[in-house]
Amino acid sequence: MALRWGIVSAGKICHDFVTALQTLPKSEHQVVAVAARALPSAQNFAQSHGIPKAYEGYIKIAEDKDVDIAYVGTLNPQHFEVAKMMLEHGKHVLCEKPLTMNERQTRALVDIAKRKNLFLMEAIWSRCFPAYQELRKVLESGSIGDVLQVNASFGFNLLNVERLRSKELGGGTILDLCVYVLQFQQLVFKGATPTKVLAVGGLNSEGTDDYTSSLWTYPGDKVANLTTSAKAQYPNEAVIVGTKGIIRVPDFWCCTEFITPERTHRFELPKTDIHFNFHKSVGLSYEAQHVRECIKAGKTESPYLTHAESIQLAQHMDTLQKLVGVVFPADN
Amino acid sequence: MALRWGIVSAGKICHDFVTALQTLPKSEHQVVAVAARALPSAQNFAQSHGIPKAYEGYIKIAEDKDVDIAYVGTLNPQHFEVAKMMLEHGKHVLCEKPLTMNERQTRALVDIAKRKNLFLMEAIWSRCFPAYQELRKVLESGSIGDVLQVNASFGFNLLNVERLRSKELGGGTILDLCVYVLQFQQLVFKGATPTKVLAVGGLNSEGTDDYTSSLWTYPGDKVANLTTSAKAQYPNEAVIVGTKGIIRVPDFWCCTEFITPERTHRFELPKTDIHFNFHKSVGLSYEAQHVRECIKAGKTESPYLTHAESIQLAQHMDTLQKLVGVVFPADN
Repeated sequence: MALRWGIVSAGKICHDFVTALQTLPKSEHQVVAVAARALPSAQNFAQSHGIPKAYEGYIKIAEDKDVDIAYVGTLNPQHFEVAKMMLEHGKHVLCEKPLTMNERQTRALVDIAKRKNLFLMEAIWSRCFPAYQELRKVLESGSIGDVLQVNASFGFNLLNVERLRSKELGGGTILDLCVYVLQFQQLVFKGATPTKVLAVGGLNSEGTDDYTSSLWTYPGDKVANLTTSAKAQYPNEAVIVGTKGIIRVPDFWCCTEFITPERTHRFELPKTDIHFNFHKSVGLSYEAQHVRECIKAGKTESPYLTHAESIQLAQHMDTLQKLVGVVFPADN
Repeated sequence: MALRWGIVSAGKICHDFVTALQTLPKSEHQVVAVAARALPSAQNFAQSHGIPKAYEGYIKIAEDKDVDIAYVGTLNPQHFEVAKMMLEHGKHVLCEKPLTMNERQTRALVDIAKRKNLFLMEAIWSRCFPAYQELRKVLESGSIGDVLQVNASFGFNLLNVERLRSKELGGGTILDLCVYVLQFQQLVFKGATPTKVLAVGGLNSEGTDDYTSSLWTYPGDKVANLTTSAKAQYPNEAVIVGTKGIIRVPDFWCCTEFITPERTHRFELPKTDIHFNFHKSVGLSYEAQHVRECIKAGKTESPYLTHAESIQLAQHMDTLQKLVGVVFPADN
């Protein structure tokens, strides 16, 4: 039976997500509706993707009896209210990262999902790439010994992207980019609680961060060294240092290969000629497939990114924002 | 006219330095004497390298009228006293890094060299590699735009190296490894004064550091992200991130190639079949040549690594030791 998706918002990431769904069997995934704040946007989006229904206002997705799951691709500050509304109307939710603006909102969302017995996942698509499952196995095998350090940088020139600059729109590199480096170290260090966090960063004229570098220490003399920037392209590679060897993970947020001391582990992306807005977006299909499997199996959270992990990511982002001096309206 | 070297100590690095000298013309470099704490060590060393004189006790080098310059390759805690003695006896000095144990000693040594009008250089051989002169030019050209970040890691499994573990022997990664990552960021950021320094690290049972990670911020939103470890092999690469591109510098402490957005800049090491103890030690010949040219030109300090830079490196190491909690007897 097909999982019936309702798409909340008609922006770039929603385009990419729906396009990725189109590479999957129709018997498994159907997009039944799209909603935008203005009807013409929804209609244009619906037309270009062959979606039956176009709505003005997100509530319509919540109220649509044909929708099983809402894909929330709105701006960051709306994630909490929109996801909450969907859950309260009985819809499963896959919500773009960051799940909400802070730990308090994330905990509240998780509570509703649990109470309503609905599936809720923060769309950290990285975790659904086949390379990540293999990476987990390699780490588990102990072949690189005891992991001592994780280094990751993630930066692009995004200074002209208003969504990222603006406080009102929930901008800043912490919410948009740091979530990726944080989830990576979280995966490697298995969700351990940091013993110390040190950070430097800089704010733009609107008071959102345009770069950060942070050090996270963990029991067993482990360190994560994380960098984000909206000012320039960074190496955008993660490196895991173990006592017996190093693993390099290029494109760690949408990983299709990683290099161990023995060899390069390669994973082919699904073949497609369709145009996407973002790098390797066809890989969003892995996430969609994973979500369908979870829901089919009656799960309310993903084993690839648990609710506890989303809560921890929110905590970590709150910590960084505090250290760097970023305060959002939602934090008050 | 040949520069006449007196070698202070008969350890591994002295072996490599003298061996590198042997790849240079005899008309330019001669080793006239070697001194060790015990005569047999000096005699063995002299015999294996064809050195005319072998001494028991370093003072003999200081008193030898045939010696123009002392190469000081003793353990770290002896650098200050030995280099001081050489300068006071009228010898030029090339002293292995770290020049001394702290800023106070380094300033004192520089003062003596200036007063006696003698050449004094901390043996940061990295700075003398042809690749570094080219790297300076590339940075100066602005081809990678404004430099925003320098990341460098430097780690090996050195847990069994007593010299590095022991407080008495001046161990720890800060003195032995950090000096290299620090001199790299100093070169890129042109000796700017950091606005903030944050660090984490761990001490071994003897109270010396066996790993550190530090963040250094500089005016203009620049950051250096530095890691050292005696627990495992790290990527041991430096990365310079500019607004217009990235430069990767493998083997940044003995650099023979670096990769700019345009191309790989390669520099061949002098050819030799001779065995060295350390990686690329034949490159010590660059340093020896540079020292000779400086002295021939009547210079008392190297333009590749000035006295002010050595003082700053000592300050930086003092700062790190304070943050990580390392205290040496010389610091009291």
